[in-house]
Amino acid sequence: MDSVEEDIYQVRKLEISDKNKGFIELLQQLTLCDSVSDEAFQERFQEIAKYGDDHIICVIQENHSNSGRIVATGSLFIEKKFIRNCGKVGHIEDVVVDSSVRGKQLGKKIIEFLSDHARAMGCYKVILDCSLENRPFYEKCGFKQKEIQMVKYFI
Amino acid sequence: MDSVEEDIYQVRKLEISDKNKGFIELLQQLTLCDSVSDEAFQERFQEIAKYGDDHIICVIQENHSNSGRIVATGSLFIEKKFIRNCGKVGHIEDVVVDSSVRGKQLGKKIIEFLSDHARAMGCYKVILDCSLENRPFYEKCGFKQKEIQMVKYFI
Repeated sequence: MDSVEEDIYQVRKLEISDKNKGFIELLQQLTLCDSVSDEAFQERFQEIAKYGDDHIICVIQENHSNSGRIVATGSLFIEKKFIRNCGKVGHIEDVVVDSSVRGKQLGKKIIEFLSDHARAMGCYKVILDCSLENRPFYEKCGFKQKEIQMVKYFI
Repeated sequence: MDSVEEDIYQVRKLEISDKNKGFIELLQQLTLCDSVSDEAFQERFQEIAKYGDDHIICVIQENHSNSGRIVATGSLFIEKKFIRNCGKVGHIEDVVVDSSVRGKQLGKKIIEFLSDHARAMGCYKVILDCSLENRPFYEKCGFKQKEIQMVKYFI
């Protein structure tokens, strides 16, 4: 990424106004995500904001003249434990890059932003779950496969 | 488990006094867990308690005359998302059963307690990471393998 692109694709924290810049549509590329009312969005935004630095959502907004769209996002929350000398673990979730801007290493920027935050908050590790298909990407970001993820759906 | 054992092994939420009933020693069977000072324990207990029903730790105390020890534990925190119609996901962590009481299905009781809480809190799923070796246990609890877990250690 050259310096012009560096300026175009800055990582920052989610803001309420991002709902109207394609944030929900971006999440729809990740999984099931119905359209969300402004009220429901604001309520969830405030619930997460209450956790302060313990739960952050970051985005990349495309800063060129015809755009302003949110093109990448990821979230991190910090779990407080008793193990590891009352340690903390960062959990990365819901990472997605818009299909139109793949190959610009925006996913890597998101992961670095979230990992740096986890480290700064004193986490001894950061973890995430992904498909086997995405393992090479996360390996490039410095992650290693460790365990398996199990799930139980209620609905 | 017969009805007498049912009485002996009840699941309840962690209390501050559990530190002196072998809770930390139990966690040491799971992973690295140094001895924790009373002050550090209380501070971390209060930090987690602030999350209320969004982060619970449950334990099983062995209620027979010569014991009173904590013999099983597990934790659950609830992540609030925008996807899935502003859905919630329960994350199960740090499940361990004392090696002296294995085979009594205490692990299953812990998982059921945490899963029931996640469902009651409106989560659409509950997830956890485990070793391949522990997959059969979680399958018996109604879980299925889905993704892989990736980790990056800072220390």
